[in-house]
Amino acid sequence: MTKTATSRRGPRPNLYTRDNLIIAGINMFHSVGYSATGIKDIVEAAGVPKGSFYNYFDSKEAFGKEVIDCYFNNAFCDAKRFFDDRNHSPIERLKFYFENRIRVFRENSYDLGCLMGNFCLEIADHSKQIRDRLTFHFKTWCNLIENCILEAQKSQEIKNNSPARLLAEFTLNSWEGCILRMRADKSEKPLYDFIKIIFNNILT
Amino acid sequence: MTKTATSRRGPRPNLYTRDNLIIAGINMFHSVGYSATGIKDIVEAAGVPKGSFYNYFDSKEAFGKEVIDCYFNNAFCDAKRFFDDRNHSPIERLKFYFENRIRVFRENSYDLGCLMGNFCLEIADHSKQIRDRLTFHFKTWCNLIENCILEAQKSQEIKNNSPARLLAEFTLNSWEGCILRMRADKSEKPLYDFIKIIFNNILT
Repeated sequence: MTKTATSRRGPRPNLYTRDNLIIAGINMFHSVGYSATGIKDIVEAAGVPKGSFYNYFDSKEAFGKEVIDCYFNNAFCDAKRFFDDRNHSPIERLKFYFENRIRVFRENSYDLGCLMGNFCLEIADHSKQIRDRLTFHFKTWCNLIENCILEAQKSQEIKNNSPARLLAEFTLNSWEGCILRMRADKSEKPLYDFIKIIFNNILT
Repeated sequence: MTKTATSRRGPRPNLYTRDNLIIAGINMFHSVGYSATGIKDIVEAAGVPKGSFYNYFDSKEAFGKEVIDCYFNNAFCDAKRFFDDRNHSPIERLKFYFENRIRVFRENSYDLGCLMGNFCLEIADHSKQIRDRLTFHFKTWCNLIENCILEAQKSQEIKNNSPARLLAEFTLNSWEGCILRMRADKSEKPLYDFIKIIFNNILT
Protein backbone atom coordinates (compact mmCIF):
# COMPACT_ATOMS: atom_id res chain seq x y z
CA MET A 1 0.00 0.00 0.00
CA THR A 2 1.43 3.39 -0.94
CA LYS A 3 1.68 6.06 1.74
CA THR A 4 -1.09 8.60 1.32
CA ALA A 5 -1.68 12.00 2.91
CA THR A 6 -4.20 10.42 5.27
CA SER A 7 -1.95 7.53 6.35
CA ARG A 8 1.13 9.64 7.34
CA ARG A 9 1.91 10.04 11.02
CA GLY A 10 2.39 13.33 12.86
CA PRO A 11 0.92 16.74 12.16
CA ARG A 12 -0.16 17.64 8.64
CA PRO A 13 2.59 19.68 6.97
CA ASN A 14 1.71 23.34 6.70
CA LEU A 15 2.29 24.46 3.13
CA TYR A 16 2.82 27.99 4.35
CA THR A 17 5.48 27.19 6.96
CA ARG A 18 8.32 28.56 4.84
CA ASP A 19 6.46 31.83 4.19
CA ASN A 20 5.44 32.09 7.84
CA LEU A 21 9.07 31.71 8.92
CA ILE A 22 10.17 34.42 6.51
CA ILE A 23 7.42 36.79 7.63
CA ALA A 24 8.35 36.15 11.27
CA GLY A 25 11.99 36.79 10.29
CA ILE A 26 11.16 40.12 8.66
CA ASN A 27 9.18 41.25 11.71
CA MET A 28 11.73 40.13 14.29
CA PHE A 29 14.89 41.21 12.46
CA HIS A 30 13.22 44.57 11.85
CA SER A 31 12.04 45.16 15.41
CA VAL A 32 14.72 43.45 17.51
CA GLY A 33 17.69 43.06 15.16
CA TYR A 34 19.50 40.17 13.50
CA SER A 35 21.90 39.25 16.31
CA ALA A 36 19.31 39.66 19.05
CA THR A 37 16.91 37.25 17.31
CA GLY A 38 17.52 33.53 17.68
CA ILE A 39 16.10 30.78 15.48
CA LYS A 40 14.08 29.75 18.57
CA ASP A 41 12.41 33.17 18.59
CA ILE A 42 11.59 32.89 14.89
CA VAL A 43 10.04 29.43 15.04
CA GLU A 44 8.03 30.44 18.12
CA ALA A 45 6.75 33.56 16.36
CA ALA A 46 5.88 31.49 13.28
CA GLY A 47 4.23 28.86 15.47
CA VAL A 48 6.22 25.94 14.07
CA PRO A 49 8.48 23.33 15.72
CA LYS A 50 12.19 24.21 15.76
CA GLY A 51 13.10 21.24 13.57
CA SER A 52 11.04 22.67 10.70
CA PHE A 53 13.40 25.59 10.33
CA TYR A 54 16.18 23.37 9.05
CA ASN A 55 13.85 21.71 6.56
CA TYR A 56 13.74 25.01 4.73
CA PHE A 57 16.98 26.84 5.54
CA ASP A 58 20.53 25.60 6.01
CA SER A 59 21.47 28.28 8.50
CA LYS A 60 20.45 31.58 10.05
CA GLU A 61 22.60 33.29 7.41
CA ALA A 62 20.79 31.54 4.52
CA PHE A 63 17.51 32.48 6.20
CA GLY A 64 18.70 36.11 6.57
CA LYS A 65 19.36 36.18 2.82
CA GLU A 66 15.81 34.99 2.08
CA VAL A 67 14.41 37.50 4.55
CA ILE A 68 16.16 40.45 2.94
CA ASP A 69 15.11 39.25 -0.53
CA CYS A 70 11.48 39.06 0.55
CA TYR A 71 11.64 42.41 2.38
CA PHE A 72 13.18 44.15 -0.61
CA ASN A 73 10.79 42.60 -3.12
CA ASN A 74 7.82 43.87 -1.11
CA ALA A 75 9.39 47.33 -0.76
CA PHE A 76 10.22 47.38 -4.47
CA CYS A 77 6.63 46.54 -5.49
CA ASP A 78 5.48 49.34 -3.23
CA ALA A 79 7.96 51.76 -4.80
CA LYS A 80 6.96 50.74 -8.34
CA ARG A 81 3.42 51.98 -7.68
CA PHE A 82 4.85 55.48 -7.41
CA PHE A 83 7.50 55.27 -10.12
CA ASP A 84 5.12 53.77 -12.69
CA ASP A 85 2.42 56.39 -12.16
CA ARG A 86 2.45 58.34 -15.42
CA ASN A 87 -0.14 60.81 -14.13
CA HIS A 88 2.70 62.68 -12.48
CA SER A 89 5.99 64.16 -13.64
CA PRO A 90 9.21 62.30 -12.73
CA ILE A 91 10.04 64.79 -9.95
CA GLU A 92 6.53 64.49 -8.53
CA ARG A 93 6.78 60.68 -8.59
CA LEU A 94 10.05 60.79 -6.69
CA LYS A 95 8.69 63.27 -4.15
CA PHE A 96 5.45 61.33 -3.62
CA TYR A 97 7.47 58.16 -3.10
CA PHE A 98 9.64 59.67 -0.37
CA GLU A 99 6.71 61.49 1.24
CA ASN A 100 4.81 58.22 1.42
CA ARG A 101 7.78 56.59 3.14
CA ILE A 102 7.79 59.43 5.68
CA ARG A 103 4.10 58.77 6.35
CA VAL A 104 4.87 55.08 7.02
CA PHE A 105 7.74 55.96 9.36
CA ARG A 106 5.43 58.37 11.23
CA GLU A 107 2.89 55.57 11.68
CA ASN A 108 5.68 53.46 13.22
CA SER A 109 6.69 56.28 15.61
CA TYR A 110 10.06 56.56 13.82
CA ASP A 111 11.12 53.10 14.97
CA LEU A 112 12.24 50.20 12.75
CA GLY A 113 13.56 52.25 9.81
CA CYS A 114 14.70 50.34 6.73
CA LEU A 115 15.73 46.69 7.09
CA MET A 116 18.17 47.12 4.17
CA GLY A 117 20.00 49.82 6.13
CA ASN A 118 19.82 47.88 9.39
CA PHE A 119 21.36 44.80 7.73
CA CYS A 120 24.13 46.96 6.17
CA LEU A 121 25.29 48.09 9.61
CA GLU A 122 24.64 44.89 11.54
CA ILE A 123 25.57 42.04 9.22
CA ALA A 124 27.27 43.27 6.06
CA ASP A 125 30.75 42.94 7.61
CA HIS A 126 30.10 39.36 8.68
CA SER A 127 28.21 37.72 5.83
CA LYS A 128 29.26 37.89 2.19
CA GLN A 129 26.07 36.06 1.25
CA ILE A 130 23.83 38.73 2.78
CA ARG A 131 26.14 41.58 1.72
CA ASP A 132 25.91 40.51 -1.93
CA ARG A 133 22.11 40.57 -1.74
CA LEU A 134 22.17 44.06 -0.18
CA THR A 135 24.42 45.33 -2.98
CA PHE A 136 22.20 43.74 -5.61
CA HIS A 137 18.99 45.19 -4.14
CA PHE A 138 20.50 48.65 -3.70
CA LYS A 139 21.38 48.59 -7.42
CA THR A 140 17.83 47.60 -8.38
CA TRP A 141 16.36 50.28 -6.11
CA CYS A 142 18.79 52.83 -7.53
CA ASN A 143 17.79 51.94 -11.11
CA LEU A 144 14.23 53.09 -10.36
CA ILE A 145 15.47 56.46 -9.12
CA GLU A 146 18.03 56.81 -11.93
CA ASN A 147 15.41 56.21 -14.64
CA CYS A 148 13.16 58.81 -13.07
CA ILE A 149 16.00 61.35 -12.93
CA LEU A 150 17.03 60.58 -16.54
CA GLU A 151 13.49 61.21 -17.69
CA ALA A 152 13.37 64.50 -15.76
CA GLN A 153 16.72 65.57 -17.23
CA LYS A 154 15.49 64.84 -20.77
CA SER A 155 12.35 66.93 -20.24
CA GLN A 156 14.42 69.64 -18.49
CA GLU A 157 12.37 69.24 -15.32
CA ILE A 158 15.85 68.68 -13.80
CA LYS A 159 18.52 71.00 -15.22
CA ASN A 160 21.35 69.60 -13.10
CA ASN A 161 23.35 67.73 -15.73
CA SER A 162 25.45 65.61 -13.36
CA PRO A 163 25.25 61.91 -14.29
CA ALA A 164 21.78 60.57 -13.36
CA ARG A 165 23.42 57.51 -11.76
CA LEU A 166 25.52 59.68 -9.44
CA LEU A 167 22.47 61.75 -8.46
CA ALA A 168 20.40 58.60 -7.89
CA GLU A 169 23.08 56.86 -5.82
CA PHE A 170 23.57 59.91 -3.62
CA THR A 171 19.81 60.42 -3.23
CA LEU A 172 19.36 56.84 -2.06
CA ASN A 173 22.39 56.83 0.24
CA SER A 174 21.51 60.15 1.84
CA TRP A 175 17.94 58.90 2.35
CA GLU A 176 19.31 55.94 4.33
CA GLY A 177 21.38 58.36 6.44
CA CYS A 178 18.37 60.54 7.16
CA ILE A 179 16.41 57.45 8.28
CA LEU A 180 19.32 56.59 10.58
CA ARG A 181 19.15 60.06 12.17
CA MET A 182 15.37 59.78 12.42
CA ARG A 183 15.90 56.65 14.55
CA ALA A 184 18.13 58.55 17.01
CA ASP A 185 15.99 61.70 17.20
CA LYS A 186 12.58 59.98 16.87
CA SER A 187 11.65 62.82 14.59
CA GLU A 188 10.71 63.26 10.95
CA LYS A 189 12.78 66.44 10.69
CA PRO A 190 15.82 64.68 9.12
CA LEU A 191 13.46 63.24 6.47
CA TYR A 192 11.96 66.63 5.63
CA ASP A 193 15.47 68.16 5.60
CA PHE A 194 16.22 65.50 2.97
CA ILE A 195 13.16 66.54 0.90
CA LYS A 196 14.22 70.21 1.08
CA ILE A 197 17.84 69.68 0.06
CA ILE A 198 17.27 66.98 -2.55
CA PHE A 199 14.47 68.85 -4.33
CA ASN A 200 15.75 72.43 -3.85
CA ASN A 201 19.50 71.97 -4.24
CA ILE A 202 20.23 68.77 -6.15
CA LEU A 203 17.39 67.56 -8.37
CA THR A 204 16.73 71.08 -9.75
CA MET B 1 46.88 48.18 62.48
CA THR B 2 45.36 49.96 59.49
CA LYS B 3 44.89 48.02 56.27
CA THR B 4 47.58 48.97 53.79
CA ALA B 5 47.98 48.27 50.12
CA THR B 6 50.48 45.56 50.96
CA SER B 7 48.26 43.84 53.52
CA ARG B 8 45.09 43.49 51.37
CA ARG B 9 44.19 40.09 49.99
CA GLY B 10 43.55 39.25 46.35
CA PRO B 11 44.94 40.84 43.24
CA ARG B 12 45.99 44.49 43.27
CA PRO B 13 43.21 46.65 41.88
CA ASN B 14 43.95 47.91 38.42
CA LEU B 15 43.37 51.64 38.34
CA TYR B 16 42.75 51.44 34.61
CA THR B 17 40.09 48.70 34.73
CA ARG B 18 37.21 51.08 33.95
CA ASP B 19 39.06 52.56 30.97
CA ASN B 20 40.08 49.10 29.78
CA LEU B 21 36.47 47.94 29.88
CA ILE B 22 35.34 50.97 27.87
CA ILE B 23 38.09 50.49 25.29
CA ALA B 24 37.16 46.81 24.98
CA GLY B 25 33.54 47.90 24.62
CA ILE B 26 34.34 50.33 21.82
CA ASN B 27 36.32 47.67 19.95
CA MET B 28 33.78 44.88 20.37
CA PHE B 29 30.61 46.91 19.81
CA HIS B 30 32.27 48.36 16.72
CA SER B 31 33.46 45.08 15.24
CA VAL B 32 30.78 42.61 16.36
CA GLY B 33 27.81 44.78 17.34
CA TYR B 34 26.01 45.63 20.57
CA SER B 35 23.61 42.68 20.74
CA ALA B 36 26.20 40.13 19.65
CA THR B 37 28.61 41.22 22.41
CA GLY B 38 28.02 39.91 25.91
CA ILE B 39 29.45 41.33 29.13
CA LYS B 40 31.48 38.10 29.34
CA ASP B 41 33.14 38.97 26.01
CA ILE B 42 33.95 42.47 27.23
CA VAL B 43 35.52 41.45 30.53
CA GLU B 44 37.52 38.75 28.75
CA ALA B 45 38.79 41.25 26.17
CA ALA B 46 39.66 43.69 28.96
CA GLY B 47 41.34 40.89 30.93
CA VAL B 48 39.35 41.49 34.12
CA PRO B 49 37.10 39.23 36.24
CA LYS B 50 33.39 39.40 35.39
CA GLY B 51 32.50 40.77 38.84
CA SER B 52 34.55 43.91 38.17
CA PHE B 53 32.18 45.01 35.44
CA TYR B 54 29.40 45.67 37.93
CA ASN B 55 31.73 47.66 40.17
CA TYR B 56 31.82 50.27 37.44
CA PHE B 57 28.58 49.94 35.48
CA ASP B 58 25.02 49.17 36.59
CA SER B 59 24.07 47.44 33.34
CA LYS B 60 25.08 46.78 29.75
CA GLU B 61 22.92 49.77 28.78
CA ALA B 62 24.72 52.12 31.22
CA PHE B 63 28.00 50.75 29.85
CA GLY B 64 26.81 51.32 26.26
CA LYS B 65 26.13 54.95 27.14
CA GLU B 66 29.69 55.37 28.47
CA VAL B 67 31.09 53.61 25.41
CA ILE B 68 29.33 55.93 22.97
CA ASP B 69 30.37 58.98 25.02
CA CYS B 70 34.01 57.90 24.89
CA TYR B 71 33.84 56.97 21.21
CA PHE B 72 32.28 60.30 20.30
CA ASN B 73 34.67 62.35 22.42
CA ASN B 74 37.63 60.74 20.66
CA ALA B 75 36.06 61.27 17.24
CA PHE B 76 35.22 64.87 18.15
CA CYS B 77 38.82 65.65 19.20
CA ASP B 78 39.96 64.18 15.91
CA ALA B 79 37.47 66.32 13.98
CA LYS B 80 38.46 69.47 15.87
CA ARG B 81 42.01 69.16 14.49
CA PHE B 82 40.56 69.80 11.03
CA PHE B 83 37.90 72.35 11.94
CA ASP B 84 40.29 74.48 14.05
CA ASP B 85 42.97 74.63 11.36
CA ARG B 86 42.93 78.29 10.30
CA ASN B 87 45.52 77.66 7.58
CA HIS B 88 42.68 76.53 5.36
CA SER B 89 39.38 78.03 4.23
CA PRO B 90 36.16 76.68 5.81
CA ILE B 91 35.34 74.61 2.71
CA GLU B 92 38.86 73.17 2.62
CA ARG B 93 38.62 72.26 6.32
CA LEU B 94 35.34 70.42 5.74
CA LYS B 95 36.71 68.62 2.69
CA PHE B 96 39.95 67.62 4.42
CA TYR B 97 37.94 66.30 7.36
CA PHE B 98 35.78 64.03 5.21
CA GLU B 99 38.71 62.97 3.02
CA ASN B 100 40.62 61.96 6.14
CA ARG B 101 37.66 59.87 7.30
CA ILE B 102 37.64 58.13 3.89
CA ARG B 103 41.34 57.34 4.36
CA VAL B 104 40.59 55.74 7.75
CA PHE B 105 37.71 53.69 6.32
CA ARG B 106 40.00 52.51 3.50
CA GLU B 107 42.57 51.36 6.10
CA ASN B 108 39.79 49.34 7.75
CA SER B 109 38.78 47.74 4.41
CA TYR B 110 35.39 49.52 4.60
CA ASP B 111 34.35 47.53 7.65
CA LEU B 112 33.23 48.94 11.02
CA GLY B 113 31.90 52.28 9.80
CA CYS B 114 30.77 54.78 12.44
CA LEU B 115 29.76 53.50 15.87
CA MET B 116 27.30 56.42 16.22
CA GLY B 117 25.47 55.22 13.11
CA ASN B 118 25.65 51.57 14.17
CA PHE B 119 24.12 52.39 17.56
CA CYS B 120 21.34 54.43 15.87
CA LEU B 121 20.19 51.40 13.92
CA GLU B 122 20.86 48.72 16.51
CA ILE B 123 19.93 50.23 19.88
CA ALA B 124 18.21 53.59 19.48
CA ASP B 125 14.73 52.00 19.41
CA HIS B 126 15.39 50.05 22.59
CA SER B 127 17.29 52.39 24.93
CA LYS B 128 16.23 55.96 25.67
CA GLN B 129 19.43 56.41 27.67
CA ILE B 130 21.65 55.62 24.69
CA ARG B 131 19.34 57.37 22.22
CA ASP B 132 19.56 60.62 24.19
CA ARG B 133 23.36 60.46 24.07
CA LEU B 134 23.30 59.85 20.29
CA THR B 135 21.03 62.87 19.78
CA PHE B 136 23.25 65.01 22.00
CA HIS B 137 26.45 63.97 20.22
CA PHE B 138 24.94 64.43 16.75
CA LYS B 139 24.04 68.00 17.76
CA THR B 140 27.59 68.70 18.94
CA TRP B 141 29.07 67.19 15.76
CA CYS B 142 26.64 69.20 13.67
CA ASN B 143 27.62 72.44 15.44
CA LEU B 144 31.17 72.01 14.14
CA ILE B 145 29.93 71.68 10.56
CA GLU B 146 27.37 74.47 10.93
CA ASN B 147 29.98 76.95 12.21
CA CYS B 148 32.23 76.09 9.29
CA ILE B 149 29.38 76.60 6.80
CA LEU B 150 28.34 79.89 8.47
CA GLU B 151 31.90 81.19 8.14
CA ALA B 152 32.00 80.15 4.48
CA GLN B 153 28.63 81.82 3.82
CA LYS B 154 29.87 85.06 5.42
CA SER B 155 32.99 85.10 3.26
CA GLN B 156 30.92 84.10 0.20
CA GLU B 157 32.97 80.93 -0.22
CA ILE B 158 29.52 79.30 -0.07
CA LYS B 159 26.84 81.26 -1.93
CA ASN B 160 24.01 78.83 -1.12
CA ASN B 161 22.00 80.90 1.38
CA SER B 162 19.92 78.05 2.82
CA PRO B 163 20.13 78.02 6.63
CA ALA B 164 23.59 76.80 7.68
CA ARG B 165 21.98 74.47 10.22
CA LEU B 166 19.87 72.77 7.55
CA LEU B 167 22.92 72.35 5.30
CA ALA B 168 25.00 71.00 8.19
CA GLU B 169 22.33 68.54 9.35
CA PHE B 170 21.83 67.20 5.84
CA THR B 171 25.59 66.97 5.24
CA LEU B 172 26.06 64.93 8.41
CA ASN B 173 23.04 62.67 7.84
CA SER B 174 23.90 61.99 4.21
CA TRP B 175 27.48 61.18 5.29
CA GLU B 176 26.13 58.50 7.64
CA GLY B 177 24.05 57.09 4.78
CA CYS B 178 27.06 56.95 2.48
CA ILE B 179 29.02 55.08 5.17
CA LEU B 180 26.13 52.62 5.42
CA ARG B 181 26.29 51.98 1.67
CA MET B 182 30.09 51.67 1.86
CA ARG B 183 29.56 48.81 4.33
CA ALA B 184 27.33 46.93 1.89
CA ASP B 185 29.45 47.54 -1.22
CA LYS B 186 32.87 47.44 0.51
CA SER B 187 33.79 50.37 -1.64
CA GLU B 188 34.72 54.00 -1.15
CA LYS B 189 32.63 55.06 -4.15
CA PRO B 190 29.60 56.11 -2.03
CA LEU B 191 31.95 58.31 0.03
CA TYR B 192 33.45 60.00 -3.05
CA ASP B 193 29.94 60.41 -4.50
CA PHE B 194 29.19 62.27 -1.25
CA ILE B 195 32.23 64.55 -1.74
CA LYS B 196 31.17 65.30 -5.33
CA ILE B 197 27.54 66.14 -4.56
CA ILE B 198 28.11 67.99 -1.29
CA PHE B 199 30.90 70.19 -2.66
CA ASN B 200 29.62 70.64 -6.23
CA ASN B 201 25.86 70.87 -5.66
CA ILE B 202 25.15 71.91 -2.09
CA LEU B 203 27.99 73.75 -0.38
CA THR B 204 28.61 75.98 -3.40
